[in-house]
Amino acid sequence: MARAYNFSAGPAVLPLEVLQDAQKDLVDYKGCGMSVMEMSHRGKDYDVIHQEAIATYKELCGLNDDWSVCFIQGGASMQFAMIAMNFLTKGAVADYGKQGTWSAKALKEAQLVAKLRGATVNVAADCQKDIPTRMPKADEWKWTPGAAYSHICSNETIAGAELKELPQTGSPLIVDMSSDILSCPRDYSKLDMFYAGAQKNLGPSGMAVVAIKKEFAAKGAAEIPTMLKYTTYTEENSLYNTPPTWGIYIFGETMKWVKKMGKENLFKLNAEKAQKIYDVIDSSDFWTGTALKEFRSNMNVTWRIQGNNEELEKKFIDEAKKLGMSSLKGHRSVGGLRASIYNAFPMEGVDALVSFMKDFEKKNG
Amino acid sequence: MARAYNFSAGPAVLPLEVLQDAQKDLVDYKGCGMSVMEMSHRGKDYDVIHQEAIATYKELCGLNDDWSVCFIQGGASMQFAMIAMNFLTKGAVADYGKQGTWSAKALKEAQLVAKLRGATVNVAADCQKDIPTRMPKADEWKWTPGAAYSHICSNETIAGAELKELPQTGSPLIVDMSSDILSCPRDYSKLDMFYAGAQKNLGPSGMAVVAIKKEFAAKGAAEIPTMLKYTTYTEENSLYNTPPTWGIYIFGETMKWVKKMGKENLFKLNAEKAQKIYDVIDSSDFWTGTALKEFRSNMNVTWRIQGNNEELEKKFIDEAKKLGMSSLKGHRSVGGLRASIYNAFPMEGVDALVSFMKDFEKKNG
Repeated sequence: MARAYNFSAGPAVLPLEVLQDAQKDLVDYKGCGMSVMEMSHRGKDYDVIHQEAIATYKELCGLNDDWSVCFIQGGASMQFAMIAMNFLTKGAVADYGKQGTWSAKALKEAQLVAKLRGATVNVAADCQKDIPTRMPKADEWKWTPGAAYSHICSNETIAGAELKELPQTGSPLIVDMSSDILSCPRDYSKLDMFYAGAQKNLGPSGMAVVAIKKEFAAKGAAEIPTMLKYTTYTEENSLYNTPPTWGIYIFGETMKWVKKMGKENLFKLNAEKAQKIYDVIDSSDFWTGTALKEFRSNMNVTWRIQGNNEELEKKFIDEAKKLGMSSLKGHRSVGGLRASIYNAFPMEGVDALVSFMKDFEKKNG
Repeated sequence: MARAYNFSAGPAVLPLEVLQDAQKDLVDYKGCGMSVMEMSHRGKDYDVIHQEAIATYKELCGLNDDWSVCFIQGGASMQFAMIAMNFLTKGAVADYGKQGTWSAKALKEAQLVAKLRGATVNVAADCQKDIPTRMPKADEWKWTPGAAYSHICSNETIAGAELKELPQTGSPLIVDMSSDILSCPRDYSKLDMFYAGAQKNLGPSGMAVVAIKKEFAAKGAAEIPTMLKYTTYTEENSLYNTPPTWGIYIFGETMKWVKKMGKENLFKLNAEKAQKIYDVIDSSDFWTGTALKEFRSNMNVTWRIQGNNEELEKKFIDEAKKLGMSSLKGHRSVGGLRASIYNAFPMEGVDALVSFMKDFEKKNG
């Protein structure tokens, strides 16, 4: 069939030309006689792919040589464990934002490590269950002086809420940017670590792309399993063991596409795409946005039909699906509607959704 | 160029028809309007891929419903840590084979966990540094009565040595089968757990395929991070978080290919392929096999040129490369020559190598 407008929260839409190039080269990568999936990770052909992917990402994020970019399997969920195992040592304190489902999961993993080791986790702000969904305001955060680190999430995918400005914490700041990495202007160089499950703005599922200051990585606990130590990745350029080579390849191609499109241009388009949908939501009482306006996400637009009408929402999702718009269902834990519109999601798909929303309201409002 | 004969130890050659089918479907998977890489892991299209991959593997390995097949990111190296974290609890004893580089790495991770928790690791047999390379003989193993588990490796990729019969250990047996899974007859149902980094006989890199008895998984320690617990995978069918969907897809297609080819037929071909190369090695003093004959691997054939002549070995590797035979270099830690000939490696590639070896010997012997 024609290409779907895929509103999935992740794995998510990838740039069409990245897919087309990958298709062309799948069996025989640029004439080297084999697929990228078949290449030794120690060979010259793969090495170029690996190095270019890292270099392009560092350039896009504005990172200097103080930083290492690591490919770590297990997605953001594995990072929740690794961060605490590395940096929440005996007697240490860490601050965590409890801003939604994902940051609460990160907090939970830290609490387990704190209990086992005799460390302390402080909840720096808690708005996880607030309705409308939101992020903490600048004056709500309570940071611990001398904390080993602080951890927050810049965009909660399920809540559809986004931090427009990152807070000043006074301790090394680690940010889960899984769902808004490279989607809006951020000063990445001010952080100590940021990471993203690849399957939203970066590539296919199967790894987190972890940017970490080498100096910060070196502070990690010594006695933890090799694969769970950041220095294993920073010191061996993510080649201690076999990395997820295909995912890194598609990630690298996607980053080249971001560079070609111009990241500032994409940032602008992202704001425009989201605004078009929010404008429809705000145009009538038929729709209700799920997040407080000042924290509305430009990546995951979440909303309900009046009275949280689940029957009409189901009808909306089903009819949209028939028109080639897939995955508009909200996360199974909260219901409602959600349109995830990452970098690679095309403007035409947003226009199709907006047009359908207006039509649906006319017929059902 | 023409398709290379790819002797890489992993990532390694995949079945050509699996690659061609994946290529055809890459942008639009069977008319559903998107790539497998773009599909929600909670959607119906992906669910079929996920379930079929597990079902085909269980059928090929002869596993009943007592077993769970899990997709766990981080390759075999992450399993080294997870096994100890789950099953080497305070006061417990575990037996480990030290049979080569990989099983020694597994042992090292267990020793760290044992130190932190107050548990004991027993080396059940040690032939890691023996030359010729080999596996422990049946009467060399020293098993601990009442051990929590025993861990061995069935095929050491670097040494080129393979256990033709798995030992009886008296405790739950866990086997690292990364490089010989589904390559020869094994009674998998007698084990408690076996696992394989996917990038050799199963698919692309980026995960281990872990088969584990549900009852055994349930014995794992409670207080470990969520992503490192086997029950997280067994209880949620590897869908607790986003799995490596593309890798699972290619794994499933590769398993269907194994089924179509007939596993018994592949086992027979594997033995024939290896024998052809060993026959040349044994035909003259110009070549020396690296492993003791009774433990020679059918997956990774390792050998040297007389007097461990590194200069001639380099010449051999370079000339072979020009003829379209790649990755014949031994592992960087041991040097020499290695031909990895997994299930998907074609007989014609072995014939090309054998012919080249004879020719090379004539010119340089």
